[in-house]
Amino acid sequence: MPHEFRIRRIVEFVDTDAAGIMHFANYFRVMEAVEHAFVRSIGETVHVQVGDKMAGWPRVEVSCRYFAPFRFQDQMEVQLLVERKTDKAITYRFNFRKVNAEGSTDASPIMASGSVTALFANNHAPDGRMRAAPMPEAFMRLIEVAPREVLNPDC
Amino acid sequence: MPHEFRIRRIVEFVDTDAAGIMHFANYFRVMEAVEHAFVRSIGETVHVQVGDKMAGWPRVEVSCRYFAPFRFQDQMEVQLLVERKTDKAITYRFNFRKVNAEGSTDASPIMASGSVTALFANNHAPDGRMRAAPMPEAFMRLIEVAPREVLNPDC
Amino acid sequence: MPHEFRIRRIVEFVDTDAAGIMHFANYFRVMEAVEHAFVRSIGETVHVQVGDKMAGWPRVEVSCRYFAPFRFQDQMEVQLLVERKTDKAITYRFNFRKVNAEGSTDASPIMASGSVTALFANNHAPDGRMRAAPMPEAFMRLIEVAPREVLNPDC
Amino acid sequence: MPHEFRIRRIVEFVDTDAAGIMHFANYFRVMEAVEHAFVRSIGETVHVQVGDKMAGWPRVEVSCRYFAPFRFQDQMEVQLLVERKTDKAITYRFNFRKVNAEGSTDASPIMASGSVTALFANNHAPDGRMRAAPMPEAFMRLIEVAPREVLNPDC
Repeated sequence: MPHEFRIRRIVEFVDTDAAGIMHFANYFRVMEAVEHAFVRSIGETVHVQVGDKMAGWPRVEVSCRYFAPFRFQDQMEVQLLVERKTDKAITYRFNFRKVNAEGSTDASPIMASGSVTALFANNHAPDGRMRAAPMPEAFMRLIEVAPREVLNPDC
Repeated sequence: MPHEFRIRRIVEFVDTDAAGIMHFANYFRVMEAVEHAFVRSIGETVHVQVGDKMAGWPRVEVSCRYFAPFRFQDQMEVQLLVERKTDKAITYRFNFRKVNAEGSTDASPIMASGSVTALFANNHAPDGRMRAAPMPEAFMRLIEVAPREVLNPDC
Repeated sequence: MPHEFRIRRIVEFVDTDAAGIMHFANYFRVMEAVEHAFVRSIGETVHVQVGDKMAGWPRVEVSCRYFAPFRFQDQMEVQLLVERKTDKAITYRFNFRKVNAEGSTDASPIMASGSVTALFANNHAPDGRMRAAPMPEAFMRLIEVAPREVLNPDC
Repeated sequence: MPHEFRIRRIVEFVDTDAAGIMHFANYFRVMEAVEHAFVRSIGETVHVQVGDKMAGWPRVEVSCRYFAPFRFQDQMEVQLLVERKTDKAITYRFNFRKVNAEGSTDASPIMASGSVTALFANNHAPDGRMRAAPMPEAFMRLIEVAPREVLNPDC
């Protein structure tokens, strides 16, 4: 069952700032894009809206640690790992590595590592307010927590 | 009647790029913020949503010319002018000037000049599709085109 | 010689706004990403910085017309065409089409069409100011203006 | 000595997403803008560049928890508190509250709470690499950690 997903992505000019590096807030844009691609890879989608009925994954908590900067046109590989899962929420871990000139990340250290905890919610109750709801069956069935040795390779 | 509006705004770090200047796409973020503040100043709002009924101002055409760059923590003054108006659409002109150390723009040349043409639209028709509609009465009554000598001070 | 380039790209959640569609300013982020990918495809780069010596392509004028909206997870195909070229500046045209469920854009109308005029500039003169300079030889040699019938297929 | 700072800011349309709320990544854009305004309030700046000599505050770690969403044109009040300080790094806490119709946040719960840890760094060493350096004297002298009862009002 899927607990890992990888995407490569180039650092765009608009992602950089006057310090010449990728702006710290933009890592969260990338994390979300990778999460959504992962969810598509299991045949699901993170956001469904039909008329005024909406279901989605509001973020509860996010974080990121930065070890070394990315620059314009660096190629990043972002590794998504499923770190925690309950019947209501999923925590994703994202490890950012730089792809080297040979197209590999085998020897690449982690440049940044972030996490996103998202809760499944919909507004299908009579009062029309978004609130936590049991997550769709495909998320329950198809997503599993990554093994400990994958999550913490150094342990 | 109002045909002009001014706002000052500092250039944030996230607005800059690796060339050390405000990224060209971010001028459109600023133009929109100024437009929305102008619309609030006449007691209106650009976006109304009740359930799945929506009304707003989709953009039809935008443009910007760049004469000199803004840098981090420059203070900009953005001047909005109403350039054209029909019963369906409004064209706003935005002139960007730098506020000098004395807090004035009296002698400041235009650093960038953009325009936004927006159409009033709603999805209130039975098929629920967004389409052009007559603009709300307050926009008709309260917004007027700027005089020619204000729009083209050099003519 | 290259005068056309195409890239596909998914509409990310962060690109949308509360009207449920791709925000108009984000089209310029996409245009720039496509321009930079085109420039990489001819073995060049748009931004070079060594110490405080910088060379790049500041934008002189940009525009976009919007015909129909993109929504979250729509797949876009962006077609870059070289519209004009002098020894100092290049104008790129960008046509946005939606990829259909069969993965094709053959019957897809243009949803938005934008342009970017950029000038080659560096700060290599003694005063260290960015100013227009003759563009590098590869841009002169490898980029050509698209034929008229490609630029204006309906004429 | 300053350990607290407040700014009000309206939620712009471009800050929202297709779920109708302020996109989670944009809270970090706001936090940074508030941090920079705080630093200006003590007569300093976060980013200094002269030629290729640069000094600034790269982010080491950031986080945010989200309790309730902001919507288009909500007025936010962001409270900055100095949470930790060493001779090399500062941790800022940011509490987001909604300003009510009377213009007050007295009874407003915290809608989101984030933190940013930034390290002072420059590239003034002979090898020209950015690395941690003793922070400028004004930061040492003028910024102090907020009292415990301000940081944790419920304790």
